[in-house]
Amino acid sequence: MGPAPPLRRNVAATRVTAVRAEERFDRADRLAAEEPMEIRAGGPGQEPASVAVTMRTPGNDFELAAGFLWTEGLIRSRDDVVSVAYCELPLAEQRYNVVTVRLSRPFDPTSLQRNFYATSSCGVCGKASLDQVKVACAGVGSGPVVARSAIAGFPATLREAQRIFEQTGGLHAAGLFDPRGDVAAVREDVGRHNAVDKLVGWAFMQGELPLSDRVLMVSGRVSFEIVQKAAMAGIPILCAVSAPSSLAVEAAGDLGLTVVGFVRDGGFNVYTHPERVDLTV
Amino acid sequence: MGPAPPLRRNVAATRVTAVRAEERFDRADRLAAEEPMEIRAGGPGQEPASVAVTMRTPGNDFELAAGFLWTEGLIRSRDDVVSVAYCELPLAEQRYNVVTVRLSRPFDPTSLQRNFYATSSCGVCGKASLDQVKVACAGVGSGPVVARSAIAGFPATLREAQRIFEQTGGLHAAGLFDPRGDVAAVREDVGRHNAVDKLVGWAFMQGELPLSDRVLMVSGRVSFEIVQKAAMAGIPILCAVSAPSSLAVEAAGDLGLTVVGFVRDGGFNVYTHPERVDLTV
Repeated sequence: MGPAPPLRRNVAATRVTAVRAEERFDRADRLAAEEPMEIRAGGPGQEPASVAVTMRTPGNDFELAAGFLWTEGLIRSRDDVVSVAYCELPLAEQRYNVVTVRLSRPFDPTSLQRNFYATSSCGVCGKASLDQVKVACAGVGSGPVVARSAIAGFPATLREAQRIFEQTGGLHAAGLFDPRGDVAAVREDVGRHNAVDKLVGWAFMQGELPLSDRVLMVSGRVSFEIVQKAAMAGIPILCAVSAPSSLAVEAAGDLGLTVVGFVRDGGFNVYTHPERVDLTV
Repeated sequence: MGPAPPLRRNVAATRVTAVRAEERFDRADRLAAEEPMEIRAGGPGQEPASVAVTMRTPGNDFELAAGFLWTEGLIRSRDDVVSVAYCELPLAEQRYNVVTVRLSRPFDPTSLQRNFYATSSCGVCGKASLDQVKVACAGVGSGPVVARSAIAGFPATLREAQRIFEQTGGLHAAGLFDPRGDVAAVREDVGRHNAVDKLVGWAFMQGELPLSDRVLMVSGRVSFEIVQKAAMAGIPILCAVSAPSSLAVEAAGDLGLTVVGFVRDGGFNVYTHPERVDLTV
């Protein structure tokens, strides 16, 4: 994978004017770090081509690059990747913002024109978007059954893991759990989709994909894109603190994923495939 | 602007298994609607080219298209736009998901390669992203001064406006206010950036751009992209219920915007340009 990336700060220091009931004071504060990162990819002997630029929180950048390529369907196995490394760039502030993925086979940059939300002359709609994900993704297996009590415990575990990393109130979190409720990995980012890609990239590095026995828990809402990424990683159960969108529920229903929303205060709503939730324990 | 768009539902009906303390029940529920929308643009005699596909909540689609083109710097005045209309497409479910903007001047589709987060051979970083916005955007004027009491009232007004539209818990909201705290317009979307683009598009249709005397309030966090869009619309004051990112604060500082975060419970934090906040009233 190339040399390990340096430890990056995912928070930045700032000063704020805090206004409260009867007082006002200037104090130090912390912000969630946000920086652009470019992902480049190239096959043997090829000049790496730009695949995407994403605004992300620095840290776990190699995971983010690998996870993005996986959830976008650009790599399919561990053998597709030869190395992941930062670009050598002259300016210090740019040095850790370009990640190059060396592939073992020729890479066609025009495949970047792909777009899960389609943009063909025949128009776009939720169904067309969904059909494209179905083509790209083998679908999830029957998957595990998760206990109600395990689901109820996910938010506290996620918050606890977040507390270790940051105190900014500005980062999304995503966690991978086993069906008993034990946490395998937690990643954070200003972008919800990046936090999920970092987790998928972590699993990729571990040789753990597809994640057929894992549960994904995210701190916010569930959009179509999150369901797409979970499906591409083979994750059968997706839980969230907040609400799913209409297209997220439609996609999950079709792709065979269980979606659980509003996981809070010991309760939750199951939107699709409730057969994977055991309400008796 | 072409014929008015039909009224679109921004919520979709579903059924959920709701699990609460000691009980479980199946009931009807509502989801925030999410559908892809493609924006196309073309000059006189040109075949419209695809500019972007965004996942959005249907409704105010023409505003979204116009606002997106404005905040991305592709249109600069009311005279640039001849018409905004839905594409005539054969399939009913796609009919309202492609919006075509007719421009009064030739449109160069290769200008779409632009990317505010840059992707040049010299690498990417926050400073480069910021420099590109600076080039595209005239910056904001001195702007109004807003009273502390007005800021404190924004969240309740935004929530009240949201209550009218939806009960899904899944939509971001953005509101334009005057400095006294009166609301001018509120828009909602599954995507925070889309809610802002819809507001900017509304102002575009009204001939109100730049919004030099308005305050923008958003329901969630503030990323670089939101600051970029506010700056492109000339909005001098940006308030949010939650936290800004590091690059959002850096950009706002440089571009001259006042950023106020964590507006809740009568208090807030001012991150940049506090001279536009009057703490005495």
